[in-house]
Amino acid sequence: MECKIILMGFGSVGQGIANVIAMKKDIIKDNYDAELKLVAVADSSSSAICQEGLDEQLLIDTKKNKGKLSNYPEYGSDISGIDVLDAVEYDCLIECTPTNKETGEPAYSLTMKAFEARKDVVTSNKGHLALRFKDVIDAAEKNNVQFRYEATVGGAMPIINCAKDTLSSCKIESITGILNGTTNYILSRMTAEGSSYEDILKESQELGIAETDPTADVEGEDAACKTVILANSLLGVDATYTDVEVIGISNITSEAIELAKDAGYLIKLIGEVTPTTLKVSPRLVKKGSAYDVSGTLNMATIKTDLADEITVVGKGAGSIETASAMITDLISILKLKK
Amino acid sequence: MECKIILMGFGSVGQGIANVIAMKKDIIKDNYDAELKLVAVADSSSSAICQEGLDEQLLIDTKKNKGKLSNYPEYGSDISGIDVLDAVEYDCLIECTPTNKETGEPAYSLTMKAFEARKDVVTSNKGHLALRFKDVIDAAEKNNVQFRYEATVGGAMPIINCAKDTLSSCKIESITGILNGTTNYILSRMTAEGSSYEDILKESQELGIAETDPTADVEGEDAACKTVILANSLLGVDATYTDVEVIGISNITSEAIELAKDAGYLIKLIGEVTPTTLKVSPRLVKKGSAYDVSGTLNMATIKTDLADEITVVGKGAGSIETASAMITDLISILKLKK
Repeated sequence: MECKIILMGFGSVGQGIANVIAMKKDIIKDNYDAELKLVAVADSSSSAICQEGLDEQLLIDTKKNKGKLSNYPEYGSDISGIDVLDAVEYDCLIECTPTNKETGEPAYSLTMKAFEARKDVVTSNKGHLALRFKDVIDAAEKNNVQFRYEATVGGAMPIINCAKDTLSSCKIESITGILNGTTNYILSRMTAEGSSYEDILKESQELGIAETDPTADVEGEDAACKTVILANSLLGVDATYTDVEVIGISNITSEAIELAKDAGYLIKLIGEVTPTTLKVSPRLVKKGSAYDVSGTLNMATIKTDLADEITVVGKGAGSIETASAMITDLISILKLKK
Repeated sequence: MECKIILMGFGSVGQGIANVIAMKKDIIKDNYDAELKLVAVADSSSSAICQEGLDEQLLIDTKKNKGKLSNYPEYGSDISGIDVLDAVEYDCLIECTPTNKETGEPAYSLTMKAFEARKDVVTSNKGHLALRFKDVIDAAEKNNVQFRYEATVGGAMPIINCAKDTLSSCKIESITGILNGTTNYILSRMTAEGSSYEDILKESQELGIAETDPTADVEGEDAACKTVILANSLLGVDATYTDVEVIGISNITSEAIELAKDAGYLIKLIGEVTPTTLKVSPRLVKKGSAYDVSGTLNMATIKTDLADEITVVGKGAGSIETASAMITDLISILKLKK
């Protein structure tokens, strides 16, 4: 069986997808009898399109050395955005364009168009799901296609599939966790070094851990999107972004962190999801507790009716790590077709 | 669709299964279109058998108040053990007889007989898998039936399904963790209270956390069985119980724990699984590290090629908790039949 893939978005995660496909396509063919083929790869400005399949390494090299995918030898194209979905025949859309939590675009339109064409979709995009989760899920069901979004929450940390597939006998009662790696990194370093928020943020930006405009991370917006996705997908709550109460970490002082530390506590940005509460805020957590994970790690404690509390910890971001969650989603789809 | 179940073993976990089926059968019918029906429940001495289905609560009450399942009104029977599999028509065997790591029985014979009759099996029994993993898996494949065993490792903590289903894009390179709740409880209390091994063991026995004969737990044998199951199922290693290097905790003194504590360490019984090493032994772990989980909790860190390290933490035992893992396995089988 062939699995023809359109990859939309070719930043860090998109390039991770190309890398992981190059690494794993042989083993996936052996184990799941599916031949992965990138038939189109696009970013916001151009694309490379070839029905016979593109070369993963050449895609990465083209983007790195020649800036635009349209410079891909022979198959470079000026087609971009949603038009790419009409330019080639495909089975699955892997969608990792940047999250926009005001409009949900381009993810929403891309996903809906793929669904209407009866194509499966794997996404890492939080925007459309934080705004219109139910619309998207309903459209997938209506068109009888697969839709998977593990990578939207916690990068490599398995939480959505973990709760759905490995805790399927249980009712999920609540989820509490550290859902943003950048803020966890900043708070961890403030705690370890006693430095100010501003100094550590600046260094994090230099290291590429925080973005030039850090608002989405430090003001809790990214974590808030994730709480909405968890609430909808695992607790069956019909919620949207504006339902989340959000307080970020930009007002946390080194003095506050010191005071907490002296009392055996840490300050962490915690996302909380219950049937009635959606909240992201800095909280005191006990040193040595499940919430005591540092650096860019994410964690989540899933409270269930039968299995009590299950905690998962893993890398919240990273090109290959996030791509691994998306390829796991793709494999789950391939298993259903086998 | 009807799913007729034979439940073999009616101790703590078996009764947990009856409880969870009673609690969840309506929701399972709604979600997976499968009507769960206990058609036979047996322990080592007798059974209750009824093709129309038994009452879960009445089974538990019979065992509790009248000792033997043969006292189940109208459908009590003196048939026991493997003969039960011939006494009634069924779809799935849920096998939770006691683990015997010398013979693997009765689990091995029960499982093989079910496979030959083309029946699916869910087990919590470690004995046959620690001794003859490959034989059992091969027999399931040969007979084209489903076989699931999440509950054999870590009770409610999802690890086998987590690695197989939610990390399927990754190669599992190693697993390191606390795989036995009883020893973790004993070591945690020794650490917290400075008491001796003997004193805490005695109290643990009184509380029902340690067994009257605690050997399997405190000498590391239970954890060793689990390392064998993880090695076979997740690392593709063809290993058996005698391949594990095992050192238990019965020689750990309160002085050793104090010395470790002063240096910022804890002593934990750690199971380690790599392609070349199978080992259970007490080790120093850093306070505040992922291994710093106390009480009867289990944890495991799964090292992967793509997703780096994923850690899971959960209750390693408990009637309902372990049963929840088995019913999740059953649901995974039901999903395939849907």
